[in-house]
Amino acid sequence: MTRIYQARIYVTLRPSVLDPAGTAVQSGLQHMGYDNVEQVRIGKYIELNLKADDEATAQQQLDRMCDQLLANPVIENYRFELVEVEALV
Amino acid sequence: MTRIYQARIYVTLRPSVLDPAGTAVQSGLQHMGYDNVEQVRIGKYIELNLKADDEATAQQQLDRMCDQLLANPVIENYRFELVEVEALV
Repeated sequence: MTRIYQARIYVTLRPSVLDPAGTAVQSGLQHMGYDNVEQVRIGKYIELNLKADDEATAQQQLDRMCDQLLANPVIENYRFELVEVEALV
Repeated sequence: MTRIYQARIYVTLRPSVLDPAGTAVQSGLQHMGYDNVEQVRIGKYIELNLKADDEATAQQQLDRMCDQLLANPVIENYRFELVEVEALV
Protein backbone atom coordinates (compact mmCIF):
# COMPACT_ATOMS: atom_id res chain seq x y z
CA MET A 1 0.00 0.00 0.00
CA THR A 2 1.32 3.40 -0.90
CA ARG A 3 1.11 6.12 1.70
CA ILE A 4 1.45 9.87 1.58
CA TYR A 5 3.67 11.44 4.21
CA GLN A 6 4.05 15.09 4.99
CA ALA A 7 7.69 15.91 5.69
CA ARG A 8 8.64 18.93 7.79
CA ILE A 9 12.28 19.71 7.22
CA TYR A 10 14.32 22.13 9.32
CA VAL A 11 17.56 23.34 7.78
CA THR A 12 19.82 25.31 10.10
CA LEU A 13 23.28 26.78 9.76
CA ARG A 14 25.94 24.82 11.62
CA PRO A 15 26.78 26.54 14.93
CA SER A 16 30.29 27.43 13.72
CA VAL A 17 28.97 29.28 10.65
CA LEU A 18 28.31 33.03 10.91
CA ASP A 19 24.73 34.11 10.25
CA PRO A 20 24.70 37.72 8.98
CA ALA A 21 20.94 37.63 8.34
CA GLY A 22 20.36 36.54 11.92
CA THR A 23 22.62 39.31 13.17
CA ALA A 24 20.70 41.86 11.10
CA VAL A 25 17.36 40.66 12.45
CA GLN A 26 18.70 40.75 16.02
CA SER A 27 19.93 44.28 15.50
CA GLY A 28 16.55 45.26 14.03
CA LEU A 29 14.71 43.79 17.01
CA GLN A 30 17.02 45.60 19.42
CA HIS A 31 16.43 48.90 17.64
CA MET A 32 12.69 48.28 18.08
CA GLY A 33 13.25 47.99 21.82
CA TYR A 34 13.56 44.23 22.19
CA ASP A 35 16.97 44.32 23.83
CA ASN A 36 16.24 41.04 25.63
CA VAL A 37 16.77 39.05 22.41
CA GLU A 38 19.97 37.15 21.64
CA GLN A 39 21.40 34.46 19.39
CA VAL A 40 19.05 34.93 16.46
CA ARG A 41 19.70 32.28 13.80
CA ILE A 42 17.71 32.01 10.60
CA GLY A 43 17.16 28.76 8.80
CA LYS A 44 14.74 27.22 6.34
CA TYR A 45 11.54 25.34 7.01
CA ILE A 46 10.41 23.15 4.14
CA GLU A 47 7.15 21.24 3.90
CA LEU A 48 6.54 18.65 1.20
CA ASN A 49 4.36 15.65 0.52
CA LEU A 50 6.03 12.38 -0.35
CA LYS A 51 4.51 9.16 -1.66
CA ALA A 52 6.24 6.05 -0.32
CA ASP A 53 5.46 2.46 0.64
CA ASP A 54 6.53 2.86 4.25
CA GLU A 55 8.13 5.31 6.65
CA ALA A 56 11.64 3.81 6.39
CA THR A 57 11.65 4.31 2.62
CA ALA A 58 10.37 7.87 3.02
CA GLN A 59 13.14 8.61 5.53
CA GLN A 60 15.87 7.23 3.27
CA GLN A 61 14.63 9.26 0.32
CA LEU A 62 14.37 12.43 2.40
CA ASP A 63 17.91 11.97 3.71
CA ARG A 64 19.15 11.83 0.13
CA MET A 65 17.07 14.83 -0.96
CA CYS A 66 18.45 16.85 1.93
CA ASP A 67 22.06 15.87 1.23
CA GLN A 68 21.74 16.50 -2.50
CA LEU A 69 19.51 19.55 -2.79
CA LEU A 70 17.60 20.84 0.22
CA ALA A 71 20.56 21.51 2.50
CA ASN A 72 24.22 22.32 1.95
CA PRO A 73 25.95 19.78 4.16
CA VAL A 74 29.13 21.84 4.32
CA ILE A 75 27.50 24.66 6.26
CA GLU A 76 24.04 23.40 7.22
CA ASN A 77 22.44 20.75 9.39
CA TYR A 78 18.99 19.35 8.81
CA ARG A 79 16.41 17.32 10.62
CA PHE A 80 12.91 16.30 9.63
CA GLU A 81 9.66 14.86 10.89
CA LEU A 82 7.33 12.63 8.92
CA VAL A 83 3.57 12.57 9.42
CA GLU A 84 1.41 10.10 7.54
CA VAL A 85 -1.42 12.05 5.98
CA GLU A 86 -3.10 9.48 3.75
CA ALA A 87 -3.01 5.80 2.88
CA LEU A 88 -3.73 5.04 -0.79
CA VAL A 89 -5.34 1.69 -1.46
CA MET B 1 13.10 35.67 38.52
CA THR B 2 14.19 36.19 34.96
CA ARG B 3 14.24 33.20 32.66
CA ILE B 4 15.78 32.57 29.29
CA TYR B 5 13.54 30.96 26.71
CA GLN B 6 14.51 29.57 23.36
CA ALA B 7 11.90 30.42 20.76
CA ARG B 8 11.51 28.33 17.61
CA ILE B 9 9.53 30.28 15.09
CA TYR B 10 8.06 28.83 11.91
CA VAL B 11 7.08 31.33 9.24
CA THR B 12 5.14 29.89 6.31
CA LEU B 13 3.48 31.41 3.27
CA ARG B 14 -0.30 31.52 3.53
CA PRO B 15 -1.83 28.67 1.52
CA SER B 16 -3.34 31.08 -1.02
CA VAL B 17 0.04 32.65 -1.83
CA LEU B 18 2.10 31.21 -4.70
CA ASP B 19 5.53 29.87 -3.75
CA PRO B 20 7.85 30.07 -6.77
CA ALA B 21 10.87 28.91 -4.73
CA GLY B 22 8.93 25.85 -3.62
CA THR B 23 7.91 25.15 -7.21
CA ALA B 24 11.55 25.41 -8.33
CA VAL B 25 12.71 23.01 -5.62
CA GLN B 26 9.93 20.57 -6.50
CA SER B 27 10.92 20.72 -10.14
CA GLY B 28 14.58 20.19 -9.18
CA LEU B 29 13.70 17.15 -7.09
CA GLN B 30 11.61 15.71 -9.90
CA HIS B 31 14.46 16.15 -12.37
CA MET B 32 16.65 14.22 -9.93
CA GLY B 33 14.19 11.36 -10.07
CA TYR B 34 12.05 12.11 -7.02
CA ASP B 35 8.78 12.23 -8.91
CA ASN B 36 6.88 11.15 -5.79
CA VAL B 37 7.24 14.62 -4.27
CA GLU B 38 4.46 17.21 -4.27
CA GLN B 39 3.37 20.42 -2.62
CA VAL B 40 6.79 21.75 -1.73
CA ARG B 41 6.50 24.97 0.31
CA ILE B 42 9.46 26.87 1.65
CA GLY B 43 9.31 28.94 4.78
CA LYS B 44 11.63 30.34 7.41
CA TYR B 45 12.74 28.76 10.66
CA ILE B 46 14.04 31.24 13.21
CA GLU B 47 15.64 30.42 16.54
CA LEU B 48 16.30 33.06 19.16
CA ASN B 49 16.86 33.38 22.87
CA LEU B 50 14.60 35.69 24.84
CA LYS B 51 14.91 36.91 28.41
CA ALA B 52 11.54 37.30 30.16
CA ASP B 53 9.96 37.01 33.58
CA ASP B 54 7.52 34.30 32.57
CA GLU B 55 6.24 32.39 29.58
CA ALA B 56 3.14 34.58 29.05
CA THR B 57 5.32 37.69 28.74
CA ALA B 58 7.65 35.91 26.33
CA GLN B 59 4.69 34.83 24.19
CA GLN B 60 3.26 38.36 24.04
CA GLN B 61 6.62 39.81 23.02
CA LEU B 62 7.17 37.15 20.38
CA ASP B 63 3.72 37.76 18.91
CA ARG B 64 4.61 41.42 18.51
CA MET B 65 8.06 40.67 17.05
CA CYS B 66 6.48 38.32 14.52
CA ASP B 67 3.79 40.82 13.53
CA GLN B 68 6.23 43.71 13.26
CA LEU B 69 9.38 42.19 11.82
CA LEU B 70 9.81 38.43 11.59
CA ALA B 71 6.78 37.68 9.42
CA ASN B 72 4.81 39.61 6.86
CA PRO B 73 1.23 39.12 8.07
CA VAL B 74 -0.20 39.95 4.65
CA ILE B 75 1.27 36.85 3.03
CA GLU B 76 2.69 34.76 5.86
CA ASN B 77 1.51 32.80 8.88
CA TYR B 78 3.68 32.08 11.88
CA ARG B 79 3.67 29.84 14.90
CA PHE B 80 6.25 29.34 17.60
CA GLU B 81 7.30 27.12 20.47
CA LEU B 82 8.99 28.29 23.65
CA VAL B 83 11.42 26.15 25.63
CA GLU B 84 12.82 27.39 28.92
CA VAL B 85 16.59 26.94 28.76
CA GLU B 86 17.76 28.71 31.90
CA ALA B 87 16.49 30.41 35.04
CA LEU B 88 18.55 33.39 36.19
CA VAL B 89 18.49 34.04 39.92
